[in-house]
Amino acid sequence: MSTFSFRPTRDQFAYTFGGVAPLHTVRPGDVLQLWSEDAFNGAVRSVGDKSAAVIDFRFGNPQTGPFYLAGAEPGDTIVLHIVDLTPARDWGASATIPFFGGMTGNDRTPTMQPALPDTTWIYQVDRAAGTVGFRSRFPRTTGGDADLEIALPLDPMLGTVGVAPAGGEVRSALVPERFGGNMDTPEMRAGTTVYLGVNVEGALFSIGDGHYRQGEGESCGNAVEGAMDSTILVDLIKGGAPGWPRLENDDYWMVVGSARPMEDAWRVAHREMVTWISELLGIHEMDAYQLLTQITRAPIANVVDPNFSVVIKVPKSPFPSASAFGAIHRQLRAQAVALR
Amino acid sequence: MSTFSFRPTRDQFAYTFGGVAPLHTVRPGDVLQLWSEDAFNGAVRSVGDKSAAVIDFRFGNPQTGPFYLAGAEPGDTIVLHIVDLTPARDWGASATIPFFGGMTGNDRTPTMQPALPDTTWIYQVDRAAGTVGFRSRFPRTTGGDADLEIALPLDPMLGTVGVAPAGGEVRSALVPERFGGNMDTPEMRAGTTVYLGVNVEGALFSIGDGHYRQGEGESCGNAVEGAMDSTILVDLIKGGAPGWPRLENDDYWMVVGSARPMEDAWRVAHREMVTWISELLGIHEMDAYQLLTQITRAPIANVVDPNFSVVIKVPKSPFPSASAFGAIHRQLRAQAVALR
Amino acid sequence: MSTFSFRPTRDQFAYTFGGVAPLHTVRPGDVLQLWSEDAFNGAVRSVGDKSAAVIDFRFGNPQTGPFYLAGAEPGDTIVLHIVDLTPARDWGASATIPFFGGMTGNDRTPTMQPALPDTTWIYQVDRAAGTVGFRSRFPRTTGGDADLEIALPLDPMLGTVGVAPAGGEVRSALVPERFGGNMDTPEMRAGTTVYLGVNVEGALFSIGDGHYRQGEGESCGNAVEGAMDSTILVDLIKGGAPGWPRLENDDYWMVVGSARPMEDAWRVAHREMVTWISELLGIHEMDAYQLLTQITRAPIANVVDPNFSVVIKVPKSPFPSASAFGAIHRQLRAQAVALR
Amino acid sequence: MSTFSFRPTRDQFAYTFGGVAPLHTVRPGDVLQLWSEDAFNGAVRSVGDKSAAVIDFRFGNPQTGPFYLAGAEPGDTIVLHIVDLTPARDWGASATIPFFGGMTGNDRTPTMQPALPDTTWIYQVDRAAGTVGFRSRFPRTTGGDADLEIALPLDPMLGTVGVAPAGGEVRSALVPERFGGNMDTPEMRAGTTVYLGVNVEGALFSIGDGHYRQGEGESCGNAVEGAMDSTILVDLIKGGAPGWPRLENDDYWMVVGSARPMEDAWRVAHREMVTWISELLGIHEMDAYQLLTQITRAPIANVVDPNFSVVIKVPKSPFPSASAFGAIHRQLRAQAVALR
Repeated sequence: MSTFSFRPTRDQFAYTFGGVAPLHTVRPGDVLQLWSEDAFNGAVRSVGDKSAAVIDFRFGNPQTGPFYLAGAEPGDTIVLHIVDLTPARDWGASATIPFFGGMTGNDRTPTMQPALPDTTWIYQVDRAAGTVGFRSRFPRTTGGDADLEIALPLDPMLGTVGVAPAGGEVRSALVPERFGGNMDTPEMRAGTTVYLGVNVEGALFSIGDGHYRQGEGESCGNAVEGAMDSTILVDLIKGGAPGWPRLENDDYWMVVGSARPMEDAWRVAHREMVTWISELLGIHEMDAYQLLTQITRAPIANVVDPNFSVVIKVPKSPFPSASAFGAIHRQLRAQAVALR
Repeated sequence: MSTFSFRPTRDQFAYTFGGVAPLHTVRPGDVLQLWSEDAFNGAVRSVGDKSAAVIDFRFGNPQTGPFYLAGAEPGDTIVLHIVDLTPARDWGASATIPFFGGMTGNDRTPTMQPALPDTTWIYQVDRAAGTVGFRSRFPRTTGGDADLEIALPLDPMLGTVGVAPAGGEVRSALVPERFGGNMDTPEMRAGTTVYLGVNVEGALFSIGDGHYRQGEGESCGNAVEGAMDSTILVDLIKGGAPGWPRLENDDYWMVVGSARPMEDAWRVAHREMVTWISELLGIHEMDAYQLLTQITRAPIANVVDPNFSVVIKVPKSPFPSASAFGAIHRQLRAQAVALR
Repeated sequence: MSTFSFRPTRDQFAYTFGGVAPLHTVRPGDVLQLWSEDAFNGAVRSVGDKSAAVIDFRFGNPQTGPFYLAGAEPGDTIVLHIVDLTPARDWGASATIPFFGGMTGNDRTPTMQPALPDTTWIYQVDRAAGTVGFRSRFPRTTGGDADLEIALPLDPMLGTVGVAPAGGEVRSALVPERFGGNMDTPEMRAGTTVYLGVNVEGALFSIGDGHYRQGEGESCGNAVEGAMDSTILVDLIKGGAPGWPRLENDDYWMVVGSARPMEDAWRVAHREMVTWISELLGIHEMDAYQLLTQITRAPIANVVDPNFSVVIKVPKSPFPSASAFGAIHRQLRAQAVALR
Repeated sequence: MSTFSFRPTRDQFAYTFGGVAPLHTVRPGDVLQLWSEDAFNGAVRSVGDKSAAVIDFRFGNPQTGPFYLAGAEPGDTIVLHIVDLTPARDWGASATIPFFGGMTGNDRTPTMQPALPDTTWIYQVDRAAGTVGFRSRFPRTTGGDADLEIALPLDPMLGTVGVAPAGGEVRSALVPERFGGNMDTPEMRAGTTVYLGVNVEGALFSIGDGHYRQGEGESCGNAVEGAMDSTILVDLIKGGAPGWPRLENDDYWMVVGSARPMEDAWRVAHREMVTWISELLGIHEMDAYQLLTQITRAPIANVVDPNFSVVIKVPKSPFPSASAFGAIHRQLRAQAVALR
């Protein structure tokens, strides 16, 4: 096991999955310490920064990577265990970008109405308290001068984890798909292991889009966006590529499906989970379907990206003897503890 | 406060919201002890009962009610606090009904493929252990004769809580909508308070569709369906009718949106929550939108009914001084404790 | 054959399918001459009439009916042949109603943006020229004072034709569904025969929502709305109830599917057409599916109602020997010619 | 004007938009005579060829191109006028590929049902009669030995016309999007002019996916697929890049929108058409919205590709003095006539 620390320069940022030469080769068992810029490319720094003016939309959601995983071939499974996520700045930013987000006409669901006000919110990080601070930007409806300030728990996550797509495609870093990408689920936090199917030699994975916290759905289109220091354990399973991104933490097995309309994101995730649970428990897919009907959790991840994402979660507690991918999650957790 | 216990005879079951004369008049503050039949009308009782043969689909999802709430007028808010839900039988049933459910072509998303096998699962209730037992119905893929048996925690809920619709409509008890109805969310458990807008004099509310437990999405279309003994506190708030069903428990404020495609269920629930949070905190709707982006939970409720349902949940913990509907939930909880 | 002429008084208007007592009994073979009010209830009469101020939204889309068809029983097929549609006024009206329509946030696809301007357009009917006149309401972008005036061909149609729903449901006259209703397809013009499944004794059919013309989709939510004089031949086929509304004119067999999302409206219409073509040609459903792939036309009907509607059309020309429902359309056309 | 004839070898086929080096440079005014392979890569040649066995799904929908258009820069408009489409073989093929198509569970709308039968249909071209022949593959339901044979009019079209995407993306040739691609609309026939926004220097356009005829929707996923000889006039307009593909023939202005769910395909096409008509007529967008409500035709193009496509068509007849893109369509039509 070796440790690799990397902070990309601005001209090293990747804006797509696929189509970019790898920055570095890593090996199964390596520990990566990666810095990533925020999804705004660091351009939104104060409440006076209006997104339409300061963001260059040709360069959104910069990724740190891609990295070449030695030995990874199409059909294999790349394993990324998130050891730690620490905000790399003392503030995060969010914004209502004109014609972007879930509660406004936008690129794919256009209307003829005018845009919402282009507004920026800055959240201060209080590391000691473990919070980020919301501060209202519009006049209180109750009158009075005071802004509303609310401390919210820090809950760092990565919006984006992905590999190069299949079929020679190159996709914007804004897209969630079979290859992972911009899934924007809060489940992508420290303690989670990600399993992705490898489509090209070396997998060419990258990460980014740090969120200091995010609600399910990421409704306005932007979480508390922030530069992030990520510690990640990399591993490789030969073969076994899942059809859609699988996640695992100490309590749940999870699949992330991404599609439109949202019921199709649910359908692809649920179909993949039927397959997975059927294998884990040695039962017929009809029995797996029935069992899942009674036990899944199904939080929405995003309602704002080119595909919507839904997570299907299955609690492990009723199945103490089952384990996935050779119990690699448990091993990686043990390694992660040793790293701290 | 008076207590009203009621077990409908079969010819008293209601199969619609609206269009049915009230069975009884109740008053704000009353305690209702209601028995409800299961969604199969009690017709599925053993694994040998095939749904296509035993269910009369003209009479699905029988409701207990409607009840006339004295004093309730259009524009008012009916308040139903679920004190207790106890399985009324020692077994529940589930089934894959041909061309019904989320992972098969169905009535609204037809395909040309054949139906899935018409299969029934019976779950035994273990009251002492607090579990229901899943038992596999198809041969194990690992070989061997033994069925897989899995004990799952009991988590009783009501699939259906609703009032008569607006505009003179009468809707099947299978439908979730603005009037509540067949929302099929596990959040509808003991300890939850439901707020529904009143559309007609007396509100004409009913309940039913007991589930001994259910995963989010209710993927095959049927939870662990079972007859239920429900204890419910009824109250009335003059005016204040919410646009969509609102729920509250000790930890969350919630809205249930129901529509197709699923992103529209999310949108209507989220829009209602923006309004609600803006009022609760005295902030501009743009600030509420931003704040919700960072804090909502968004579990799917159902992906199988005529409308899909999504729940938007907001944790109360960051807002200790805010309270909804005059803090009526806290009062009802106190009353509920006294009742036990 | 007898002729029945009817002009409802305002207190006879029906605002739902189902839930209304029949106004009159008719017999197979009868000719009906029916007057219907426009969808605005006649409240929008000049460009100064703002919809939000003048329309009572509790009473939208008034229907003329329902009528009881003697002999019609559940499972039968009611046949309505549209002999003639003539505008009953010399002007029609359209409007952009706040938060209603296809290119604005609305009831089911809400956003946080403000409403579009509440605007009314009045179209003058030129009976001699066979046109309705569009006149612009906003300043020309090219400058100058003159409004743009455009003569558009008259193409009268009925937005709404339907029967009482199944299952005891009562639905708003704004809803298109299996029972017909507010399908809003331009195919519902003179010369078209409509086949609807009967759900209750007497069928209880009604018509309304005259449009002097309409584009496919009815994008802003309102066609050139106008009171209409309709001449309709009524007939009955025992049994044979189609699953979804079927239409026939001299050139096409058609099915109207209504659902959300729009692909599901397409799916239900296409599935019904596979069944129908399979029967008409005596071929396997897989062959019908293949054949339809190469020959269907699929115009959108509406994108603005509670369900979206899509029409699947199959040209009759390649199938000269096939005829539907005992060639009743041809007979009704002959009768219609004799009536003129 | 020069003429360029090209028939790619198999190793010159392109399977993506973007990501492929241009085969040739062409100039505005050039005439291209292009041969294209069918979407099956020529692998389905008889009814005995089962798609799952003979198609290599890594190489679907081969394109002829890309070509570099001299002078084309991002923001420009590439103009492709289809002079002629002639079937290059005497037969075309169609198939129901397992888990592909509009009336089966598939990649994005999975179910747990088994696949439809993997079946191939071969259509013989009768050039003299101008027809392709459907022949049934399954036993007639009416009994008897004879297959049903039906002659259908030839109506050649290109499923795919597109340029390299924006943002460095590379997309499968199966995808319809802003850059054109696999739109699968029957409107893409001889006599149609296509306008696409240029995203990269040289535009890098390609064409393919010839259909000898296709119904709207392409319901089973495959039209009468066939190798095609295409004659195309190429031109360039500096600037003026449309947001979505625009088409024009002698009778209609058209926009093709591609998205999921299908209402979003309608929305993006309709929004683009509001902009276009507003410009063409010099009217406010609200007036354009109102006018389009009364005059658009809205045929579905495909319901089977990664995005669904909808065409918005506006008849030119009410607007004799309006012309688009400097009346270039009329000029190209004149040139096309001269070429024949």
